Amino acid sequence: VSATRSDLRAPPPLDWDGQRLRILDQTLLPAEERIVELTGAADTAEAIRRLAVRGAPNIGIAAAYGLAMEVAREPGLGSLERGASRLVEARPTAANLGRAVQRVRWAAVKAYAEGGAVRMAAAARAEAEGIHAEEDQASRRMGELGAELLAGCGRVVTHCNTGALAAGGRGTALGVIAELADRRPVKVLTTETRPLLQGARLTVWELRRLGIEHELVADGAAPGLIARGQADAVIVGCDRVAANGDVANKVGTYSLALAAREAGIPFVVAGPTSSLDPAAATGAEIPIEERDPDEVREAGGELLTLPETPSRNPAFDVTPAALITALVTERGVARPVDRRTLAALLAP
Amino acid sequence: VSATRSDLRAPPPLDWDGQRLRILDQTLLPAEERIVELTGAADTAEAIRRLAVRGAPNIGIAAAYGLAMEVAREPGLGSLERGASRLVEARPTAANLGRAVQRVRWAAVKAYAEGGAVRMAAAARAEAEGIHAEEDQASRRMGELGAELLAGCGRVVTHCNTGALAAGGRGTALGVIAELADRRPVKVLTTETRPLLQGARLTVWELRRLGIEHELVADGAAPGLIARGQADAVIVGCDRVAANGDVANKVGTYSLALAAREAGIPFVVAGPTSSLDPAAATGAEIPIEERDPDEVREAGGELLTLPETPSRNPAFDVTPAALITALVTERGVARPVDRRTLAALLAP
Repeated sequence: VSATRSDLRAPPPLDWDGQRLRILDQTLLPAEERIVELTGAADTAEAIRRLAVRGAPNIGIAAAYGLAMEVAREPGLGSLERGASRLVEARPTAANLGRAVQRVRWAAVKAYAEGGAVRMAAAARAEAEGIHAEEDQASRRMGELGAELLAGCGRVVTHCNTGALAAGGRGTALGVIAELADRRPVKVLTTETRPLLQGARLTVWELRRLGIEHELVADGAAPGLIARGQADAVIVGCDRVAANGDVANKVGTYSLALAAREAGIPFVVAGPTSSLDPAAATGAEIPIEERDPDEVREAGGELLTLPETPSRNPAFDVTPAALITALVTERGVARPVDRRTLAALLAP
Repeated sequence: VSATRSDLRAPPPLDWDGQRLRILDQTLLPAEERIVELTGAADTAEAIRRLAVRGAPNIGIAAAYGLAMEVAREPGLGSLERGASRLVEARPTAANLGRAVQRVRWAAVKAYAEGGAVRMAAAARAEAEGIHAEEDQASRRMGELGAELLAGCGRVVTHCNTGALAAGGRGTALGVIAELADRRPVKVLTTETRPLLQGARLTVWELRRLGIEHELVADGAAPGLIARGQADAVIVGCDRVAANGDVANKVGTYSLALAAREAGIPFVVAGPTSSLDPAAATGAEIPIEERDPDEVREAGGELLTLPETPSRNPAFDVTPAALITALVTERGVARPVDRRTLAALLAP
């Protein structure tokens, strides 16, 4: 523990006191560190939709608490179902959201069947706390497995934000990088991640706190720098992994995978098994969220183009399994990434 | 001519009255259309450096006029050499800049040898006007050849700005798109082109004036949309083409070429032969300009990340010839793009 970098000074992204969930509003970072208190399904769903809380594992955790708070406030099957629907509809792509809400929902339904509405709140809360603890534990394990995998890599490219702001513990891909940096010198090339700049705003903020050397680049610059031999590996997170290993992740991921293959360096994905979705046969079955075009027309609140410019804003893209060197999960590393290795990870 | 779209309402990017060069300051677009008058080598070099005038062919034209104005103001070999150095050093990557300055320089030196300093100004001006006329003519011819090549393509991806703001006539890649749009319905997917947003600011401005349907996307989104079958071709310009066909172009180009190959759609480069540099054997010999990191830290004048975040800002990347389906020049189309086909284009 003494070797762990001092990443604890920042306010925690998710803070649960047993009754209320406090989140660090990520839309305001890095300029302002504002804590927002959530009290039920509606405000939690809204916080997820507007990305005040984000990152596939963390939106699962937040949604779980959101539903638990909803049931505590108004025990009963009606409020449970309304709250669950509201939360699941907040964002479509991350597998973790639906999975976490389903787990809390079933725990509450089971408690209702056994002891009536009075038992629901405690069961929902216990399930949400269990999900949170599992994700913390998963991040720790992914960090260890990923750091072993990348032991020879001192220059690492990452995309979007996958640190403590996005997942339990120290994060998924950024959790691996933090663990790697505890073991050897590491330099991170981080993309800015347009349109919402999670790299420039959040990853830079976390890397500075972690004391890890980093350089920020435009999204379009990373593939060319990889081609020029300036990186030893690419590591990213994931929002949903299909049964065949295709990965949906933040838009821009696909081009990094193409560049990594071309340069002959590893392209590694880190994510808990809660991001796996065996019901999606391939990446083509993963719903891709299309967000407000204003996010593309603007940056930092400034209009960047002509008003009313037609625009598309897919929040994710799909990287085919064949481009992925390894998938690091808390249950082990799938390598190669295919139907067989993923099924083995999920086997009891 | 009657079929040509009404792209003439905008102020011309370059306006030469025989004595002074007036440029549309592209750093202010699309919010403001301000004309700046240039009078010699120093202010022209500065306008090129700060991207008030930009695009490989247009910086060649502007530099040619800059040197001609310098020699008209102060005839003599000293001012010629000082002016030429100043202009050539303004930006390192585009081949057109050095080539245009060399042409004007030699025309002036020849006139000096034949008739002394008094003859220099007229010779330099005539050479600069010749370069300008050649680039206009080259754009027209590239438009025709490129539109034939892409006749079957209704959905086209482009990057950065390659229209009249960047090159003579209607431009290089965007000139091809404009000609194609005169012949068939075309929809353009244009990248925003971080960090300086030439796509969001300039290409959108030109496409709206041209009346061509378009959608703006984040740079990282284009490869994923290509993979999802949403484009029939990619067409971009070039800043320098090595002897083996490797192309240096705006950073972010390389990932579009990788995505196009993966999707099995054509990746076409359009540029005048003034962008060819046979002295560079391969792309590895092309100097890549590194610009101010503040361009990455900011957008629209707003700081996007923590102050003093370390950052890299390569303005270009290199796309290997093997990824390029065809190179459209005013002298014909090289297809495949290799040492042999490029040498044939340059043969007298």
